[in-house]
Amino acid sequence: MTTHTGHTAAIPATKVIGTAVYNTSGEHIGTIEDVMLDKLSNGIMFAVIGFGGFLGIGEKFHAIPWSQLDYQEHRAGYVVPFTKDQLKAAPAYSINELAGADGEKARDASYKYYNVEPYWF
Amino acid sequence: MTTHTGHTAAIPATKVIGTAVYNTSGEHIGTIEDVMLDKLSNGIMFAVIGFGGFLGIGEKFHAIPWSQLDYQEHRAGYVVPFTKDQLKAAPAYSINELAGADGEKARDASYKYYNVEPYWF
Repeated sequence: MTTHTGHTAAIPATKVIGTAVYNTSGEHIGTIEDVMLDKLSNGIMFAVIGFGGFLGIGEKFHAIPWSQLDYQEHRAGYVVPFTKDQLKAAPAYSINELAGADGEKARDASYKYYNVEPYWF
Repeated sequence: MTTHTGHTAAIPATKVIGTAVYNTSGEHIGTIEDVMLDKLSNGIMFAVIGFGGFLGIGEKFHAIPWSQLDYQEHRAGYVVPFTKDQLKAAPAYSINELAGADGEKARDASYKYYNVEPYWF
């Protein structure tokens, strides 16, 4: 993430999971359901965001690059620099598609969609 | 991590947390209590290993570099390439020392102790 929060650099995964996520307009768009870790490197693959009924896509999740999550203390949540429309059109996956072998596919497609530089090169 | 498990590269943090950890002699030495994430980079800072009463140091935890955790299917747990004596003498920290500003100190000391190349350079 790009901001220093209280001058700390470390955050436990258990503290990240369950945190609310907002978009740039301040709309509450979901919750961090999990954090996907790369077994074969030291990289945080992506955050798994659940949007509930908001996008009307049932149990689908978005794979948001870790670097795009900006914690804002006054909101007690993360803000992602994406509009509602961008998120609506973003790739969405089931939990099975995100874990296991397909995690990489979701990662690659999502980084491309959000135009975020890959960490794995 | 260095091994491919079932040809998967992605693992959710919630699945890692609670997994047993063994040492090279096959001794059960603890449990993964949390995974510490780096807010300012894309790095997995370290795994937080609780050793319970094993080391007789109460509520202290070890910060084990992610790259040192090798999942072994037949054990349904991670194996770390450290002896009992190495682990007994390893740096140990309270949860407060591991989170927040002190996470980096624990990380630096632990990577040095375990002789693991830093990911943050």
